[in-house]
Amino acid sequence: MLIVMKRDASKAEIDAVVERIGALGLSAIPLPGAERTAIGTFGVAAREYADQLESLPGVAEIVLVSRPFKLSSREVRAEDTVVRIAGVPVGAGQPLAVMAGPCSVETREQTLATAKAVRAAGAVLFRGGAYKPSTSPYSFRGLGPSGLELLSEARAATGLPIVTEVLTPTDVELVASHADCLQIGARNMQNFSLLDACGEQAKPVLLKRGMAATVEELLLSAEYILAKGNPNVILCERGIRTFEKYTRNTFDINAIPLLKKLSHLPVLADPSHGTGKWYLVAPVALAAVAAGADGLLIEVHPSPDHALKDGFQSLTFDNFEKLMAMLPAIASAIGRPVAAAA
Amino acid sequence: MLIVMKRDASKAEIDAVVERIGALGLSAIPLPGAERTAIGTFGVAAREYADQLESLPGVAEIVLVSRPFKLSSREVRAEDTVVRIAGVPVGAGQPLAVMAGPCSVETREQTLATAKAVRAAGAVLFRGGAYKPSTSPYSFRGLGPSGLELLSEARAATGLPIVTEVLTPTDVELVASHADCLQIGARNMQNFSLLDACGEQAKPVLLKRGMAATVEELLLSAEYILAKGNPNVILCERGIRTFEKYTRNTFDINAIPLLKKLSHLPVLADPSHGTGKWYLVAPVALAAVAAGADGLLIEVHPSPDHALKDGFQSLTFDNFEKLMAMLPAIASAIGRPVAAAA
Amino acid sequence: MLIVMKRDASKAEIDAVVERIGALGLSAIPLPGAERTAIGTFGVAAREYADQLESLPGVAEIVLVSRPFKLSSREVRAEDTVVRIAGVPVGAGQPLAVMAGPCSVETREQTLATAKAVRAAGAVLFRGGAYKPSTSPYSFRGLGPSGLELLSEARAATGLPIVTEVLTPTDVELVASHADCLQIGARNMQNFSLLDACGEQAKPVLLKRGMAATVEELLLSAEYILAKGNPNVILCERGIRTFEKYTRNTFDINAIPLLKKLSHLPVLADPSHGTGKWYLVAPVALAAVAAGADGLLIEVHPSPDHALKDGFQSLTFDNFEKLMAMLPAIASAIGRPVAAAA
Amino acid sequence: MLIVMKRDASKAEIDAVVERIGALGLSAIPLPGAERTAIGTFGVAAREYADQLESLPGVAEIVLVSRPFKLSSREVRAEDTVVRIAGVPVGAGQPLAVMAGPCSVETREQTLATAKAVRAAGAVLFRGGAYKPSTSPYSFRGLGPSGLELLSEARAATGLPIVTEVLTPTDVELVASHADCLQIGARNMQNFSLLDACGEQAKPVLLKRGMAATVEELLLSAEYILAKGNPNVILCERGIRTFEKYTRNTFDINAIPLLKKLSHLPVLADPSHGTGKWYLVAPVALAAVAAGADGLLIEVHPSPDHALKDGFQSLTFDNFEKLMAMLPAIASAIGRPVAAAA
Repeated sequence: MLIVMKRDASKAEIDAVVERIGALGLSAIPLPGAERTAIGTFGVAAREYADQLESLPGVAEIVLVSRPFKLSSREVRAEDTVVRIAGVPVGAGQPLAVMAGPCSVETREQTLATAKAVRAAGAVLFRGGAYKPSTSPYSFRGLGPSGLELLSEARAATGLPIVTEVLTPTDVELVASHADCLQIGARNMQNFSLLDACGEQAKPVLLKRGMAATVEELLLSAEYILAKGNPNVILCERGIRTFEKYTRNTFDINAIPLLKKLSHLPVLADPSHGTGKWYLVAPVALAAVAAGADGLLIEVHPSPDHALKDGFQSLTFDNFEKLMAMLPAIASAIGRPVAAAA
Repeated sequence: MLIVMKRDASKAEIDAVVERIGALGLSAIPLPGAERTAIGTFGVAAREYADQLESLPGVAEIVLVSRPFKLSSREVRAEDTVVRIAGVPVGAGQPLAVMAGPCSVETREQTLATAKAVRAAGAVLFRGGAYKPSTSPYSFRGLGPSGLELLSEARAATGLPIVTEVLTPTDVELVASHADCLQIGARNMQNFSLLDACGEQAKPVLLKRGMAATVEELLLSAEYILAKGNPNVILCERGIRTFEKYTRNTFDINAIPLLKKLSHLPVLADPSHGTGKWYLVAPVALAAVAAGADGLLIEVHPSPDHALKDGFQSLTFDNFEKLMAMLPAIASAIGRPVAAAA
Repeated sequence: MLIVMKRDASKAEIDAVVERIGALGLSAIPLPGAERTAIGTFGVAAREYADQLESLPGVAEIVLVSRPFKLSSREVRAEDTVVRIAGVPVGAGQPLAVMAGPCSVETREQTLATAKAVRAAGAVLFRGGAYKPSTSPYSFRGLGPSGLELLSEARAATGLPIVTEVLTPTDVELVASHADCLQIGARNMQNFSLLDACGEQAKPVLLKRGMAATVEELLLSAEYILAKGNPNVILCERGIRTFEKYTRNTFDINAIPLLKKLSHLPVLADPSHGTGKWYLVAPVALAAVAAGADGLLIEVHPSPDHALKDGFQSLTFDNFEKLMAMLPAIASAIGRPVAAAA
Repeated sequence: MLIVMKRDASKAEIDAVVERIGALGLSAIPLPGAERTAIGTFGVAAREYADQLESLPGVAEIVLVSRPFKLSSREVRAEDTVVRIAGVPVGAGQPLAVMAGPCSVETREQTLATAKAVRAAGAVLFRGGAYKPSTSPYSFRGLGPSGLELLSEARAATGLPIVTEVLTPTDVELVASHADCLQIGARNMQNFSLLDACGEQAKPVLLKRGMAATVEELLLSAEYILAKGNPNVILCERGIRTFEKYTRNTFDINAIPLLKKLSHLPVLADPSHGTGKWYLVAPVALAAVAAGADGLLIEVHPSPDHALKDGFQSLTFDNFEKLMAMLPAIASAIGRPVAAAA
C-alpha cells in the first residue's frame, strides 16, 4: 500500500502518517519525490487500514498494491486444484467437463428426458434448478423440494452426478443431501451468509460470478468458502452486464485465462447466461474452450419454446448434440481431451 | 408485448405464433407492415411467456412494453405513501428525514457519542450497522447481537428510532426485535429469501439499490416485500458502479425524480456510499434534496481516521453539523421544510 | 509510480528493473517488503514508461500514482479560472450562467423565437446547433453554414452571445467567425485533431465529457486545448452511459464537486442530455446548481413535439421559465446569485 | 415503432397521436389493450419521429422495433461480403487473415524487422501506426508522414499490404496514398466527418468498435461509409470498457457471432487491445477464431519493454510465432483454413 501525500503536505503531516502506521504495528517507508512524498507500507494486513489512513491530514490518496485474496491465489498455491464431483474430475489437465440440463426442473418427464439426452451427447454432469431466483415476485420460482426429488431420480436413471442451486443458508443442508455439487448463483455471489454456509459443508461448490462483479471480487467470494474449510470451489464465468442491448450479458472471455493465471481453482464457462441467445451459445462455448476453460455449463431443454424460464437461451437436444460433436476438435487443438460419457 | 417477426417469416410461421398466443389464453393482434409483420399481445401476464414466444420459428425479437411492477407503481396507486419509523414520517409532503450514524457500531462510547451528536445537529433517525457485509472474509464483519444492544441503548439515550441492516433471513426476527426499521443492503437487493422474510414482518424496510441494478429491478425487489403484505418500504439510491475511478460509486441523481415519478414510495439518498469520498458528501446531499429526495442517509463518525469501516466516506461531527445547517435553505427553495429535532 | 515485483522475483530481476529506471534518467527507490519487493519512481515523466517497465521479467504490475493532467489541475493553479464569453463571465464566484436554446437550428422563426424566449426568462447565452452529430447517417445533420447565419441573427436580435458546436478541424475557422464560444461534443471529446484546432484559436471552448469517459480523461482532453495556448476552457458534465434503461444517460452529479476540486476550470451541467427526459430536466438542473455547477446548459424548443432532434429532452418556453424562476432560491441557498438578463 | 399510451390517456389524446402519425405520412394502427392502448407504426422512416411523438400528451413511451441499419444488414444483403486488401481476401469462407505489426512505427529498423518477422510467422497483412491517438497531449503521437514512408518501405521489403490508422479527414488523402487499408480507431468510431471522408475514397476501411459503443452503433457507423459508396468495410471488435480492473478492456466475444449474424461484413478480432495484457492475447485470439472471426489483429514488437506505446499488450516475435502455430488446428476445428504466407 502506498500513501500518497498532497503536494503541499507539511513535514508534520508526513510524520503523523508515519507514526500512525507504526502505531498499527506496520512498518512505514517514506519515499520523498520531486513533486510530493509517498509512504509505503506492505502486507495484506495493511489494506484493512486504508480508509483510516486516507482520512489523515495531508493524505492525497491511497494506492493498494497487494492482492487481497490468499487461499484462492496461485501465488499461495501454485499447483492446480482438481475438484471431483462424485468422482467426476474438473480442473486443469483433466478432460473437459460438460454439465448440462434445463434452467428449471419442471416435470418428471422433462427432467428425465433431458438427463438422458445430455448424457447420450456426452455430458458428464447434470444440472437443473429446483430453487430459482427471479427478478419479479410474479415469476416462476422453482418446484422446491419436489424438484430435488426429480433430480435424484435423474441421477439414478443416468448415473450423472447432480449440480443444483441453493438460494439461502437454511436450505443448504436439504439441497446438499440431494446434490453432488451446490451452485451459488450470480445474484448471491456476495450473499456472505450463504458463502459461509456452503463453506461449512462438504460438497463441492460451483460459484458463479456476479453480473457486475470484478474478478477480484469473485476470488474474494471464493475465499469465504475456502476459509471455512471447503477446498472444492469451481469458479464460473457467466457474463457481465454491459451496455449491449442485443445480448443479455457480455461473456467475459478474458476472465477465463485471467482466472487460470491468478488462481489454482477450476474455471467453468456458462455461455447460456453469458449470451442469453441460443444461437450464440455454440460459438461462445467453443471460444471458452479455446481460451482454456476447464468445462462448460449449457442449458438444454426438450422444447425451449415451452420452457418456464430462460427458454430463449436453451439449446434443443439436437443443437446440444451438434455442439458436443464440435468440442473434441477444439479441445485437442489446445491439447485437451473431452471427457468420455460414463 | 410485441412479437416482431423476421422479414422473411412465412404466413405459416405468423399463424403459428398467433395460435400459440391464443393457446396461452391471451389475445393476439397481428400488425402487418411494409417490411415485416409484428404481433401485439398485452397485459402483465404476457411477459411471462416472452422467452417461449421468442423461441418460435420466424420470430426476430420480442419487445416488452408494459412495466412489470404493480404494487409499487404510481399508476396503480397515485397517492404518495408515507412510511412512519416509530412515528417519524418519511415521504412526500413530510419534512426532510435525515438518518445518520456510523457505518459500523464499534464501541459503546463511539455509538452513544455519535447518536447524541447527530441528534443535536438535527437528525431524526439513528443508523448504524451491527451486521456488516464485507467483500473480503478477512475484514471486520460487525459486532452482531452486542451491536444491537448498543443501538437499543443509543435509542434510549436520545429518543432517535434505530435503522440497522439485516443480512440473512434467520436474523430477521432478532434484528426486528431491536430495530425500528430494517435495512436491506445493496448486495442483498436480489436476495429474494431475505426480501420475503422482511415482507413477512411488520417493521418498515429501507431497501437499497444494488450497485448494478436498474430502477426497474429496484422496484421489482420492493414488489417482493409489498407482495408479502408489508407496505412500508423506503427506496434508497446509494450510487451505482461505473468506470469512474476517482469516486467509489456514481450517485444516480436522475433516479431520485424518476423513482418519485414511477412509484408512490418514499425515496432516500445515501451520498456517503454514493460518492465514497467525505469531501463530496455535502454537495451531493444538497443536490439530492434539490432533486426531491424525501430524506438523507449520512455516515458520521467521531473520528473517521479510526473507523473500522468506511472511514473515508464518513463525516466528522463538525462537518455533519455544517451540512445540516445548509439543508433548510435548499429544502425551502423547493418548498419543503426540514424536520425539527425532537 | 510503483513497480510491484512478483513474489518470486529474483534479485537479478529486481536489479534489472532498477537499472532500467536509471537508464531512463529517473531515480529508483527499492522497497523490500515481507511478501515482495516494490520499486518506486516518481514524477509525471515516469508514466510514459509504465508499459515498458511492466514488460520486464519479474514485474507483477505497475501502479500509477501521480495524476497526468497539469495545466488543468488545481494543484498547479489554485485560483479559479473565470472564462468570459463575449463578456459574460462563467466560473466560481460569478453569477450562475444559464445557456439555453434548441438542440438544432431548424428555421429562422424557431431560432429567433427561442432566443427571445430564453433571454426573457433569464438565460445569458444562446446555444443552438448548426452542425449536428448523428448516430445514423439517415438522420438530420444540421443546416450547416445557413444555421450559423441564423445564430448570428439571433445574437443581433437579443444581444445574447452564441455557443455552437464544431465537428471537424476544417470547420473551426468558419464556426469561430460566427460563434462566441465553440462547443466540442461528447462524441468528439477524444477527437484530438479537433482539440488541437480549438486550442489554436482564440474563442472560448465548451468541452463536453464523453459518454464513457472518466473525469481524468475529460481533464486530459482539456489539457490538449490548454497546451495549445487557449486558456478559456469550460468543462461540461452531460451524463454517462450506464445500464439504466429508463433514462438516456446517467447524470454524474459527483463529477460537479469533483471537477471543482481537481481543477480550476469552470464546470457546467447539461441535464437535458444528462437525463434525456424533459420531465427530469428541472430537478436535475436544481441538483446540479446545489452541487456547485457554475452554470447550466438547457435545451429549449418552441414545440418539442415538432423538433427535428432531441425533442423529448427539450423544455417548452413555459417549463423553461418555471425552472428559471426556481434557480435564484437554490443558488442563494449555497451563496451564489443568478445572472441578471442583460 | 410502438407508441405506448399512458393508462389514463384520453380518447382525444389517442386520436391526436393517430392523426399526427397520419400527418407525417405514416400509417397508424391502434391496439387497444386491457390496461392501455398502444399505437403501431412501422418502417425505418418512423424512427426519425420517435422524439416528436414521445412528446405528445398522453404518450407513456416509445418502443423502437425495426433496426436502423440497412446497407450493412444481412436482412438487406444475405451473402457474405469479402473485402480484398491489395488482393488479400478477408471474409467468410476465406482463410483466416492475420494482420500484425507494432502499435506505432518507431524506427526503420524496428518496422522492417517486425514486418519480416510477422510475415515469416504467417501474417498476410502488416499493420502499424504512423498517426497515434493519445489520451494525454504529453504522450507520443506517432511519426506522421515519415512513418507512412517506413510502412511503404516495409511493404516493398515483404510484399505485405499495409493497414494504418487515419485520425482526421484532412489526412485521408495522404494516408490513402500509402496504405492499402485505412483504419478508423475506436475513439473515432463516431467521428462522422472522418467516416464520410473514408466513404468517399476507394481503399478498404477497417472500422474499430468504440470502447463504449453498442453493436448497433458500430453498424450505424459502418453505414456512414457504405452510404458514401465504399462497400469495403471490415468490422473490428477490440474490447469494451467495463468495471474490470485487471484487464484494460473486456473483449466482447459475443460480438463476433452476433455481428456475423446481423451483417454480411467481415469481422476481425483485436485481442491485443481487447485484453491489454500480452499474456492474455493468445488464449483470446484462439477464442475469437473458434467463435468465427474472419481474422485477427495482433500487436507485435521486437522488444515490448522498449516500445513507445502499448508495449505491455504486444507479443514478442517468439510469442507471435507460437500463437500462429496454434491457429491452424483451431481454424480447421471449425472448418476454416489459415491463409498461407505469400
